[in-house]
Amino acid sequence: MAKIGIDLGGTKLRAAVLSEEFEVVEWFESLSEVQRGPAHTIALMISMIHQGMEKHSISGIGIGAPGPLDNKKGILLESPNFPGWKEVSIVDELSNVFSLPIQLNNDAQAAALAEAIKGNGKGYESVWYTTVSTGIGSGFVINERLFSGAAGCAGEIGNMIIQPGGREQSNLNAGALEAYASGTAIGEIAKERYNWQGGAAEVMERAIKGNAEAIGLVDETIGALAIGIANIVHTINPAVFVIGGGVMKHHDYLLPLLRHKTIPLLYPSMVSSFKLVPAALQEEAGVIGAALLVNHS
Amino acid sequence: MAKIGIDLGGTKLRAAVLSEEFEVVEWFESLSEVQRGPAHTIALMISMIHQGMEKHSISGIGIGAPGPLDNKKGILLESPNFPGWKEVSIVDELSNVFSLPIQLNNDAQAAALAEAIKGNGKGYESVWYTTVSTGIGSGFVINERLFSGAAGCAGEIGNMIIQPGGREQSNLNAGALEAYASGTAIGEIAKERYNWQGGAAEVMERAIKGNAEAIGLVDETIGALAIGIANIVHTINPAVFVIGGGVMKHHDYLLPLLRHKTIPLLYPSMVSSFKLVPAALQEEAGVIGAALLVNHS
Repeated sequence: MAKIGIDLGGTKLRAAVLSEEFEVVEWFESLSEVQRGPAHTIALMISMIHQGMEKHSISGIGIGAPGPLDNKKGILLESPNFPGWKEVSIVDELSNVFSLPIQLNNDAQAAALAEAIKGNGKGYESVWYTTVSTGIGSGFVINERLFSGAAGCAGEIGNMIIQPGGREQSNLNAGALEAYASGTAIGEIAKERYNWQGGAAEVMERAIKGNAEAIGLVDETIGALAIGIANIVHTINPAVFVIGGGVMKHHDYLLPLLRHKTIPLLYPSMVSSFKLVPAALQEEAGVIGAALLVNHS
Repeated sequence: MAKIGIDLGGTKLRAAVLSEEFEVVEWFESLSEVQRGPAHTIALMISMIHQGMEKHSISGIGIGAPGPLDNKKGILLESPNFPGWKEVSIVDELSNVFSLPIQLNNDAQAAALAEAIKGNGKGYESVWYTTVSTGIGSGFVINERLFSGAAGCAGEIGNMIIQPGGREQSNLNAGALEAYASGTAIGEIAKERYNWQGGAAEVMERAIKGNAEAIGLVDETIGALAIGIANIVHTINPAVFVIGGGVMKHHDYLLPLLRHKTIPLLYPSMVSSFKLVPAALQEEAGVIGAALLVNHS
């Protein structure tokens, strides 16, 4: 039977009806308007689900949302992208309306499932997925099941320390990966050093055009990311490492560099099993992954 | 039915017959004499297995040995502790003699299984085990199954980079965890700084007696280990983190320090699920874990 996947973002709310093969058969999209409070956004969601159920038999609903959240209790905790939302029991709210299995997890973990089952991680026993965007998130899928960890916090590698006492950013550890390699960090460093206002996207575009300062900054970023990737590979040695997110948009340019900097940090016995590939799915990853949460959590 | 577990170390060879509940019912031990070459040590092993089979019906044999090794092919690669051993097909050699399932894995992963099923990881959905000894090794057990990774290299956290460009030791990455927190590292640093010759054991004993220099060195060591642990918790968020090995012998002294230094590095949402406990099993962990490899790999 079909499922509904919901991708709740700080800006957009997307929902889709997915076939049994997890192909998108209906698509709903609106602004999420989270600043108007949870009741408003949840009402938008309910309306999309009702529309989806009019034409399709639905066997479950999955929701991907920014963390921190409690995936077991189905509660959104406090997110910087959702001002005023605090401990919102989103799964209970929807369960009051729909008698269906409903699963919540964070957006990176949902996208990891989408890549593992429908994207470039397909066919591998274990799939590590990392998204490098405003922040850095990850998900880990083993035998087509999400491994979320004891408190649902597996994949929070943005806070991995790669330079003790190093760069500070928001509530991260000093010297955390996200303070060097996220879109936020790249944009901040570019502004501090060169007064460029265009964020990580500008840095990438300047680097591709041959600007030496931008190339230097990309080199630092990729170096930091290589340490993070090598640390993950030494920890869990996944069969494939899928990397996506806005910062990796120019993956034809970035992935060869990233491989070049990561491989020397690996034990020789790990190199042949190190497969670094770009994400295959674009904006539909969120809803596909959310729908997959129903049976693959 | 009973199983035989073999713990092949650089100094000692141990084998045991384990009951269905993985209690030790027979114990064999000799020097492993690895310097005499693989044929000699394998002959010792075969003799122990024959003795074990005289009184017991045996359904499988597991072997734990120092890495690097290929657990899927059952081959020991080159180990610094086994001079002259190179690509020894130990599983094939034993299969020529015994028509039984035979599994090889590294000693840390075998010990992880032992702790997960018979030790302090018992009852937890996911168990991370780290041994801090001459080197640093780990194993990861999910639902009583070992997760070894694509090339059997999950748990090689000794090579995790915690200080880019930092301390160098043997073939590790510069600034790797093992170059700060292993017994080897502690012993080397103590010798360089204070000309103490007694290795990590002397440092720990001096610290416990109140020597300020030793306390300073323990503080650095535990600080490095805390970064490694926090990085693992952010990556996979295990339900329990079991820590053992010779360096952690005085765990009543060390574990409170380690908790104290690790907790501030975790996201608040992870703290309540962070359980750091000492290993329960001592010298029998190797053979129990080896025997568990047969059905839990």
